[in-house]
Amino acid sequence: MKWMLAIVCALAANICLAQTAENFRPASTNVWGAQYPRIDDAGRVQVRVKAPEATTVKLNFWNGPKVGMQKQSDGFWTVTTEPLVPGFHYYTVVIDGAEVADPGSHAFFGGTRHASAVEIPEPGATYYSIQDVPHGQVREVWYHSKVTGTWRHALVYLPPGYDSQTNTRYPVLYLQHGGGEDETGWIRQGRANVILDNLVAARQAEPMIVVMAYGYALRAGESLPDTAATTFGSPQMLKAMQDMAATFEDDVTQALIPFVDKTFRTLPDRDNRAMAGLSMGGMQTFHITLRHLDLFSHIGGFSGAGGLLQPGGGKFDPKTDYNGAFADPDAFAKKVHVLWLGVGSAEGERFLGSIRGLHENLNAAGIKHVYVESPGTDHEWQTWRRALHDFAPRLFKARKARS
Amino acid sequence: MKWMLAIVCALAANICLAQTAENFRPASTNVWGAQYPRIDDAGRVQVRVKAPEATTVKLNFWNGPKVGMQKQSDGFWTVTTEPLVPGFHYYTVVIDGAEVADPGSHAFFGGTRHASAVEIPEPGATYYSIQDVPHGQVREVWYHSKVTGTWRHALVYLPPGYDSQTNTRYPVLYLQHGGGEDETGWIRQGRANVILDNLVAARQAEPMIVVMAYGYALRAGESLPDTAATTFGSPQMLKAMQDMAATFEDDVTQALIPFVDKTFRTLPDRDNRAMAGLSMGGMQTFHITLRHLDLFSHIGGFSGAGGLLQPGGGKFDPKTDYNGAFADPDAFAKKVHVLWLGVGSAEGERFLGSIRGLHENLNAAGIKHVYVESPGTDHEWQTWRRALHDFAPRLFKARKARS
Repeated sequence: MKWMLAIVCALAANICLAQTAENFRPASTNVWGAQYPRIDDAGRVQVRVKAPEATTVKLNFWNGPKVGMQKQSDGFWTVTTEPLVPGFHYYTVVIDGAEVADPGSHAFFGGTRHASAVEIPEPGATYYSIQDVPHGQVREVWYHSKVTGTWRHALVYLPPGYDSQTNTRYPVLYLQHGGGEDETGWIRQGRANVILDNLVAARQAEPMIVVMAYGYALRAGESLPDTAATTFGSPQMLKAMQDMAATFEDDVTQALIPFVDKTFRTLPDRDNRAMAGLSMGGMQTFHITLRHLDLFSHIGGFSGAGGLLQPGGGKFDPKTDYNGAFADPDAFAKKVHVLWLGVGSAEGERFLGSIRGLHENLNAAGIKHVYVESPGTDHEWQTWRRALHDFAPRLFKARKARS
Repeated sequence: MKWMLAIVCALAANICLAQTAENFRPASTNVWGAQYPRIDDAGRVQVRVKAPEATTVKLNFWNGPKVGMQKQSDGFWTVTTEPLVPGFHYYTVVIDGAEVADPGSHAFFGGTRHASAVEIPEPGATYYSIQDVPHGQVREVWYHSKVTGTWRHALVYLPPGYDSQTNTRYPVLYLQHGGGEDETGWIRQGRANVILDNLVAARQAEPMIVVMAYGYALRAGESLPDTAATTFGSPQMLKAMQDMAATFEDDVTQALIPFVDKTFRTLPDRDNRAMAGLSMGGMQTFHITLRHLDLFSHIGGFSGAGGLLQPGGGKFDPKTDYNGAFADPDAFAKKVHVLWLGVGSAEGERFLGSIRGLHENLNAAGIKHVYVESPGTDHEWQTWRRALHDFAPRLFKARKARS
């Protein structure tokens, strides 16, 4: 029977694939019963996939080793990598030129596909591990957007106690995923709910609502742009991305925020509303918040921020950029309670250089902000977990002072 | 920059893959920007995957066509299927012997992997389409189980109005996935939340909480069973499955139900508690509910029910099976307000025969129950969507009569 066969598969995966290896054990990100991929305490990863008729199989860590796999006599291909740094690492396998997910891994949406990943534990880091503390809940919601003409899906984290303390209203952080990812990323990959649970339990962060929206948007009736818009760096592509950011801006301000404020017990004023995002989400955050300082008072850019959407990239004129939001440092400091910028020290020069450059530009312009480099981490989720862990405790302090 | 490249991929997928085909359009289950798989109004499916160095690529619908794909000069492989019946159809592609997911499709957990799928619309069927009616929310919860010694993840649907009607308590349906699937199946594949939203809006079903748990369980410290337990039909395998069902029974009754009743505004009595499941989940439902009629009063088996776990399979002795729960038809009818059995008429004889057989056995034993065959559907989600749509309106009528 089919359901029995499925169980047999799960059980068989456990047994058939077993092999003695010092300290290697199945990654925590594996599907039920899958013995591969495996990791050891050094951070090495063993991958094993069945491809009996393939000629070449390669393992492709997006920010790590890209290595050939070796065919075994049983039709499986295997490889053991060099040690990887701690954190969450996307990968795919390339089977005779087909880039696909590893069936042994859970799927995580990134690179506009359901990709595979392994989690390499960071010794001593417990801030993103589920603990025996009160847990918030993550809710799936669907809201209709007149901007896009569609039902849109979002995830909403509600802090511990939300259901029992029915007279309490909460501040809201809008938290965006990166390009190629989706609204599930901050929970599945980032463990934002666990990070917040632990911070709130330790009284290091205010209890807050976190809204994770789907960052792609086309206006009702609009199609994806034509081929010229896909040529990297072309004026058409810049235009297409600006159009999408503008559409998402309208969706956030006209559909999402009203829906959230109607649906949840929020504190619906600018002092109690923050936005942050990683990579593309950081760009969107700057794009949206700096045009709507009537709505937002806390801003976070994690490995992505202002400038990326601007023609000219790193150039910065505080008097005119972002409609002059940075023109008056004192006025800005009064309005924006937290401006946070961060990047991983191991990220490529494009990210490290552009975020550092913005940091220096902001300093030169006298704009008060926080700048944090995550030691040794790349353009990956470990950087963004750390960013959230540093950013969240800084939020909504004005609220506490008021109450 | 990486986030830009991801967008380029999304956009490029839209353009590069475009081809003129009568009435074919991207499946609703595709990832952002993916033009393939495509479907037409006849229910035909076009699949297209890149595998430039592959020798053979096959398309593998689990309950449908298994056909070779044709290599094109651009390194992509394509095929168009015969018309498929309406509903949700899992598939994989097999690239030189490697069975993998199609990167163009969203991933759905089935067959103990993240599989691909297409949705073929059923003409005139709107009951599982999102409508402009009040929507419930789906919450992700984590509960600690002393039975398994782990944190366990479950999805919980709360009906429209749950947050605003804070004095109302609700009955609970525990709803289980099939073998090889997980707790996400009833939302992602089954659209249980949409089905309930629409039924409640039409006043055809009572507002209820639906709890969707992870149906696999090992006792704390226990490992997956050894190789003999994976031999289909072996006594060891039956034992392993009975052990898992018993562990899940303890998890449901000792950890999950107390957690749900503590966390949500439930009506925590047997009259207001139901359990149903599909395939393996139906087997678990019978296993659990009939041993705990002090906890449950409504029982649903969708393409899976009693007997499957019993040595001897279809044999049925109402006097002794399930600890004699069926021994006294009158007593049973007083205790169990709804006993529901269903199966798709196009399912294989194993399922159709065993469910029909149980139906006939129950009739012979004088046990009042509902039996529904879904016309033309296989051992697939369309059968189980219909089952839920028929089952849910029958639940908790006693509650209404009381209030």
